[in-house]
Amino acid sequence: MNGAEALVRTLIAGGIDVCFANPGTSEMHFVAALDRIPGIRCVLALFEGVATGAADGYARMAEKPAATLLHLGPGLANGLANLHNARRAWSPVVNVVGEHATYHRELDAPLTSDIEALAKPMSHWVRTTASPDSVAADAADAIRAARTPPGRIATLILPGDAAWNETRAALPNVAPPPPRPRIDEAKLRAAADELRKGPSTVLMLTNVGLRARALELAGRIAAKTGCRLTAQMSNARIERGAGRLPIARVPYAVEPALDYFRDTRTLLLLGAKAPVAFFAYPGKPGRNTPPDCAIETLGGPGDDIVHALEFLVDALDAGRAVPALAKPQRPPLPAGALTGDTIMQTVGALLPENAIIADESVTSGRRLFSFTDGAPPHDYIQLTGGSIGEGLPLATGAAIACPDRKVVCLQADGSGMYTLQALWTMAREKLDVVTVVMANRSYAILHGEFRNVLAGAPGERARAMLDLDRPALDWVQMARGQGVEAARATTCEELAKVFAGALRGKGPFLIEAVI
Amino acid sequence: MNGAEALVRTLIAGGIDVCFANPGTSEMHFVAALDRIPGIRCVLALFEGVATGAADGYARMAEKPAATLLHLGPGLANGLANLHNARRAWSPVVNVVGEHATYHRELDAPLTSDIEALAKPMSHWVRTTASPDSVAADAADAIRAARTPPGRIATLILPGDAAWNETRAALPNVAPPPPRPRIDEAKLRAAADELRKGPSTVLMLTNVGLRARALELAGRIAAKTGCRLTAQMSNARIERGAGRLPIARVPYAVEPALDYFRDTRTLLLLGAKAPVAFFAYPGKPGRNTPPDCAIETLGGPGDDIVHALEFLVDALDAGRAVPALAKPQRPPLPAGALTGDTIMQTVGALLPENAIIADESVTSGRRLFSFTDGAPPHDYIQLTGGSIGEGLPLATGAAIACPDRKVVCLQADGSGMYTLQALWTMAREKLDVVTVVMANRSYAILHGEFRNVLAGAPGERARAMLDLDRPALDWVQMARGQGVEAARATTCEELAKVFAGALRGKGPFLIEAVI
Repeated sequence: MNGAEALVRTLIAGGIDVCFANPGTSEMHFVAALDRIPGIRCVLALFEGVATGAADGYARMAEKPAATLLHLGPGLANGLANLHNARRAWSPVVNVVGEHATYHRELDAPLTSDIEALAKPMSHWVRTTASPDSVAADAADAIRAARTPPGRIATLILPGDAAWNETRAALPNVAPPPPRPRIDEAKLRAAADELRKGPSTVLMLTNVGLRARALELAGRIAAKTGCRLTAQMSNARIERGAGRLPIARVPYAVEPALDYFRDTRTLLLLGAKAPVAFFAYPGKPGRNTPPDCAIETLGGPGDDIVHALEFLVDALDAGRAVPALAKPQRPPLPAGALTGDTIMQTVGALLPENAIIADESVTSGRRLFSFTDGAPPHDYIQLTGGSIGEGLPLATGAAIACPDRKVVCLQADGSGMYTLQALWTMAREKLDVVTVVMANRSYAILHGEFRNVLAGAPGERARAMLDLDRPALDWVQMARGQGVEAARATTCEELAKVFAGALRGKGPFLIEAVI
Repeated sequence: MNGAEALVRTLIAGGIDVCFANPGTSEMHFVAALDRIPGIRCVLALFEGVATGAADGYARMAEKPAATLLHLGPGLANGLANLHNARRAWSPVVNVVGEHATYHRELDAPLTSDIEALAKPMSHWVRTTASPDSVAADAADAIRAARTPPGRIATLILPGDAAWNETRAALPNVAPPPPRPRIDEAKLRAAADELRKGPSTVLMLTNVGLRARALELAGRIAAKTGCRLTAQMSNARIERGAGRLPIARVPYAVEPALDYFRDTRTLLLLGAKAPVAFFAYPGKPGRNTPPDCAIETLGGPGDDIVHALEFLVDALDAGRAVPALAKPQRPPLPAGALTGDTIMQTVGALLPENAIIADESVTSGRRLFSFTDGAPPHDYIQLTGGSIGEGLPLATGAAIACPDRKVVCLQADGSGMYTLQALWTMAREKLDVVTVVMANRSYAILHGEFRNVLAGAPGERARAMLDLDRPALDWVQMARGQGVEAARATTCEELAKVFAGALRGKGPFLIEAVI
């Protein structure tokens, strides 16, 4: 067996059965090993940012890592932005990055670069395997690192000779994912005392704390004590819809976020990060909480959050408190002009049962939650790291993870252009994704920020960097050019008709909703 | 004046008058300064890899740096692959990367990452400016670094508060580009002795050594001594066509490259790098030269190459030797099926005077030179670092640098998909670029490499990572969707007609040449 085969067998032993790939010459032995050894579904991406973003979306829904296959330093570099988002989502990912043969590096061939240095800023674990004898053990370590709660980015660099040379090294046992450590009970008891203080205490959750069961527990605590609950501003995944606890997120803009925490005296972080401004602004505070608010980290993102909530429910005797779960309720279909709000309302009116919403709607989607609180139960995944260009890849990965569920991708146009190549992968893999592109033909958020920061209207040279209207992008043609069926909607009535039709169908469909 | 204004004024003082930009919130003060202070043309790219690749193409043709404007670590990351190519081309580039305000970094807001660590692998110079008082001096240093021959990648990281706070610091003088140092005459005299040995000595050139005047000098040396001349495998820019010295490049594949240097006993590197295999292959050597070949570095890429050639011409008394310049000669228009060769032949038959060829044709373009040696004088720029996805951005930057020249972009389909967003910038800026996409609907080079390496036919899972035919990409729709006029050609006759029409016209046009 050669090193590449040892790697494939170890990945399979570690439960990895999907590889989002964009290979090159240095990875051909790994490709050949994937070819010979059944067990891993290889999904080709036409750009590495699609591969890494899809791995993130996959991990959020499958709750286990996919592999990526990337071509040396530049291939990894192209994938870094969405690895940044994955890192901020605590998604487990195992990157396999091809590298020149060990003895070839010193020759500084054109594609040579410092892959480890490129990998480190966006990875929790990085290793260049030394030889075919070390590949499998290193891969097992990478998988263990990725699966360590809450989930990590592991990057294994595979020199050509480590892939193609033979090895007799025994394949390692791949350790099962380590359990989440429980939070100290004394700490939890002290937290219970804080929660009893009512609405001046806020319990902040994210990720596993936002699944239905965890939210229900949190809802009991809130019902019993009157404390407030909040999710982070961005979260890897939320189980939402009728029968689940609706939970607010910290607002994006500084003033509403400050207002949100105005009366908070104690903020308990259960796996979440302390809320801060997305960007700094002259003269505005960086933290969203008042200076006199105590911020206590009850548990980290890798801790046993569900157990902590169960413990708190018991300690507070909240087991019979009634959480304020959402009742089934849909907004009516809107009429007239398309706006961010009417598009979101249409989504709320028509969202099918058990759907997955992949959200990179940016400015257009800010009121989505108010229209979907009572929609049929669904999963909501969103951009976590602020690096735009992940909506389409997230939807791609989610659809691979959950082939029986409808994925609705809400995509802003400016950010959608970063990784529009994902549409081709959706077509090739026949993924059941309905994408709605919010075509406002500008970086609308930057128009807002320009005004926020400078209190003036942008001039010609500035508008040239904020507007996307010369020429207008035609998403219908760009989708069809990649094999995805598409249509344009310019009114609410058109959108409702096209969206309903796309939801009834199966396979990828794109709707350009012109705002 | 605030720090952002000081930066813009310093860039202008340093001769920078183009900025390829993809800004975000943290760069709004810089955008506002560019808006208020005339002198820099801002070119919006819808993806950062377009911005950095365009800066590379611009630098190669304008012989001076453009600025780029990138949004924090992920924005820089998206631009790294083409900065890798620019670095390998020795192109001068000044990157301005926005960063959180200095005091905001410790809060670890979602977009926070280690920007310096990301920048270093692809930059020769990296600095985070400390305050508005240091911005201008740091920018002057960045410009000096970028303009130091042969050209370097300088990355200036600009925290928000360094941009928006006021400064009274005097604007620095921006030093003119330092001259290229002359090569020691004793070394050149010894090289002359080697060159006199005739064809067993090879003089290897790249970049400035491949401009018409340098090539003519080299041609005199070869005519006088019988030595051989070669360019690198990849070169930032070559002045080619009738009246110029045609020069061969080192072949890409290992065996032809070994054969190319079989009889070489002395290899003199004048600004070039020793030729090595692009990738390592099991059992094949890494160096292209025989073990007993002496490799001597006569001068580095930043040295005064033209002076060295002049000195050698004098030392060898070659001033009246007649260089073997190409005579005007075009191939006939081919007929019948489109292949890589017949497309290149069509280019040779129709290429207009003073054109710029931006080449990322990969496998399809290997015989381009034989069809264009005698074409009207033109510039040839190509992928230098092996990181695919630079053809369209290179063409974009070249067209900005040379608005009165026709740019012909020869683009393979697989690599074209990496940065297809460049088409929109071409449309927006009305760039005079005719793009020919070689639509072979596969990563053809990888099919070759798979066979090379493994001597077998790829199976289903491997083909799924090498072929782009399910579904076929429709480049005509993808171009029109971004505002670029487009047509498809399926025969040589169709291609000739459409290509000739596009060359007569003005503005961007894309031809999908289906192979």
